[in-house]
Amino acid sequence: MGAARQRSREIMTDLYELTMAASYFEQNMFAPATFSLFVREYPPNRSYLVCAGLDPLLDYLESFQFRPDDLEYLAQTSLFPDTFLEFLETLHFTGEVRAIPEGRIAFCDEPLLEVTAPVMQAQLVETFVINAINLPTLIATKASRCSHAAGDRQLVDFSLRRTHGMDAGLMVARSSYIGGFIGTSNVQAGKIYGLPIYGTMAHSYVESFDREIDAFRAFAKSFPDNTVLLIDTYDTLAGARKAVTVAEDMRRNGKALRAVRLDSGDMPQLSQQVREILDESGFPEVRIFASGGFDEFKIQKILASGAVIDAFGVGTRLGVSADAPYLNMAYKMVEYNDRPVLKLSSGKVSLANPKQVFRQREENGLFKRDLIGLDEETVADAEPLLTLVMKEGKRLNAPENLRVIQERFRKEFAQLPENYKDLHGIPTYPVEMTSRLRSLQDRVSREIREKELGTV
Amino acid sequence: MGAARQRSREIMTDLYELTMAASYFEQNMFAPATFSLFVREYPPNRSYLVCAGLDPLLDYLESFQFRPDDLEYLAQTSLFPDTFLEFLETLHFTGEVRAIPEGRIAFCDEPLLEVTAPVMQAQLVETFVINAINLPTLIATKASRCSHAAGDRQLVDFSLRRTHGMDAGLMVARSSYIGGFIGTSNVQAGKIYGLPIYGTMAHSYVESFDREIDAFRAFAKSFPDNTVLLIDTYDTLAGARKAVTVAEDMRRNGKALRAVRLDSGDMPQLSQQVREILDESGFPEVRIFASGGFDEFKIQKILASGAVIDAFGVGTRLGVSADAPYLNMAYKMVEYNDRPVLKLSSGKVSLANPKQVFRQREENGLFKRDLIGLDEETVADAEPLLTLVMKEGKRLNAPENLRVIQERFRKEFAQLPENYKDLHGIPTYPVEMTSRLRSLQDRVSREIREKELGTV
Repeated sequence: MGAARQRSREIMTDLYELTMAASYFEQNMFAPATFSLFVREYPPNRSYLVCAGLDPLLDYLESFQFRPDDLEYLAQTSLFPDTFLEFLETLHFTGEVRAIPEGRIAFCDEPLLEVTAPVMQAQLVETFVINAINLPTLIATKASRCSHAAGDRQLVDFSLRRTHGMDAGLMVARSSYIGGFIGTSNVQAGKIYGLPIYGTMAHSYVESFDREIDAFRAFAKSFPDNTVLLIDTYDTLAGARKAVTVAEDMRRNGKALRAVRLDSGDMPQLSQQVREILDESGFPEVRIFASGGFDEFKIQKILASGAVIDAFGVGTRLGVSADAPYLNMAYKMVEYNDRPVLKLSSGKVSLANPKQVFRQREENGLFKRDLIGLDEETVADAEPLLTLVMKEGKRLNAPENLRVIQERFRKEFAQLPENYKDLHGIPTYPVEMTSRLRSLQDRVSREIREKELGTV
Repeated sequence: MGAARQRSREIMTDLYELTMAASYFEQNMFAPATFSLFVREYPPNRSYLVCAGLDPLLDYLESFQFRPDDLEYLAQTSLFPDTFLEFLETLHFTGEVRAIPEGRIAFCDEPLLEVTAPVMQAQLVETFVINAINLPTLIATKASRCSHAAGDRQLVDFSLRRTHGMDAGLMVARSSYIGGFIGTSNVQAGKIYGLPIYGTMAHSYVESFDREIDAFRAFAKSFPDNTVLLIDTYDTLAGARKAVTVAEDMRRNGKALRAVRLDSGDMPQLSQQVREILDESGFPEVRIFASGGFDEFKIQKILASGAVIDAFGVGTRLGVSADAPYLNMAYKMVEYNDRPVLKLSSGKVSLANPKQVFRQREENGLFKRDLIGLDEETVADAEPLLTLVMKEGKRLNAPENLRVIQERFRKEFAQLPENYKDLHGIPTYPVEMTSRLRSLQDRVSREIREKELGTV
């Protein structure tokens, strides 16, 4: 087990963060820098983003400290001078963070958060910052799309077995809850985040009994208050009839079968047939739960085809955001030592200066447009989205309850105009620069071109 | 930080593993079961798989034990009887594992590993088993494709910032090394797995200096033996000329510029122009390193267009296996209490009985075809691939050195016929069932249909 126990988050980083830090140290460069985190372009089918991942990131920043065994490893690489490694021993994160709160909706190019700290600190956390926000934002967005497709049907995260590792499983459980799910199959996420957990039986359970009905009866005996029977191991309709037999037994004992689960086959047709079997046998209250390859597209499609499903388990395609498995998210320096900076790399230009995002709304509350401006600007009739969440390395607020974040998401999502919710979304929400940001951007680009292009 | 420190791997599981276990406990079902792990279908563009992830999985199985705080949490859910939770307190994994070694090439439908243990144990580890093998196999396969496209050019894993969490970052570093990469930017992976680590500077480093050349000089001073200059922050060709200036300074001091890095723009054209600048200035030994959105497709494309690149940093698209972010991998019960079992679910039929995979080769050593048979079969002139790696819950061998696994991969890959390596691979390698497995499968399916279809 050794390996796993020795993990620490401070060296969960790209080597270049440390080589740059060593060089800053040698050059005595300790001035403050601001970095902006933003998404460069929408992944396919998306026209908005749901912010998520901030709280675990603040936790990391607040507790940032290299461990002795990390420093020992770094010493072994022979890349770094001892004086630098000694300096790292006592290094903490002492900067400030401004961020768009979790659960809010944001758009491309907008800073989702900005970090201001002595340059070495702001740089050292880069890899972790991107990693901590990228997947949660991706998944909360994907989950919101599933929620939208499912309407008032309940959704449960079933993705753990095929998420990219166990961290990802936790991030997906947390982020899908933010995006409207009611809970997860992930027991650890239940423990750590207090999320409702769901789950009953697999096909193997059915197979381990001589007959399917024996399995159903055994499970109803073990979990009389939480009986959901998986009925497709051999034949879904035969399974449904056996479930009815068990439901009748349960009713005689004063208990009730909660639901049956379908996990394969022609869902619209099977769900209607199962609904009919249950209804005609006097069990209209037994719910139908469906799983197996669902995502927003398949949910939308089978519901449009008349599937009668009360709740969905949504697994792999949510957990890896299968149609768009990453965000093109970047963390770029925008100011160093009070000097606005940017890069001009082809196709990857960044916006100079610390910034603020301003949201303008219609009279009915619907989003109208966002403006990206300088951090010190104010824009009339617009709400600034970035708020100060960490100062001098300390959080300004206790971690938010996930129910509060989910509620914030629901309110925001209700105010996002419908055309941006299309699952094959092309419309681009208007995000513009204020004239002051635009002027600054032009000036800085021009100065850099004059200074840097050509030979030396 | 609390949350992260309280994580444990035993409850990194789907709730249903625990509800089934509780029911097995209540039913006194402790007979042995065998489960098979296999991939149902090739992801797009693939026609082989590179096995990876076994060693960390064995580590998990060997140390399996519920922690007091996990059991406390489970008690709080009120789902489980106390007697069951008391039983879990002392539960260890006491089963056996047979697996195809890491670095070997396997194909769909073939069991990559089989677990035999008392049913509760074999079931409880399901979620972790799939999770532990799915991403590593996916990434080792993706990495092998990048290696194939790059020919003799070196590849470095640059994916950490956009992997799905930090676990994934470690899995990707390890698995891409198995698939032929020379190392990673991931410092933690360097520490834990002893992998070579790489990295020098980001654009922000360049921007934090008044002039690009000042940044280059500062870095060369800090790392005179490991100077790689990122030259595209403002303009790649101007950057290349400044790099030459620094290389000349370094040469006067008895040092040498190692490489320049390009991270954006038209790679074929820019790399040729940069090569020309370096060569004409007397620096033919300075290497060109490229990064920015690479995967096997982009590597193949720019090399075909005449790019002059010595090494690639391969990031996000490797780290999330962007064109195929998951394997349809399943862990299915195949035998319970000496009775072969299978499921008949539409499109998800499983193969009964513990099995073995036999590989037949041409006289020149190239793979000819694989046969899946019963575990007790032998097939003439064929190599059995599944080997016993754990018995009574203990590993039979020390963890393998990753260099040994990489070497095994290289040998295997050399024996895979070229047509299966096509990046847009359609050819399907022949994987057949032995007649004994086929007969058993037919018999068990028939028996189940007779017993289970229709009402009760």
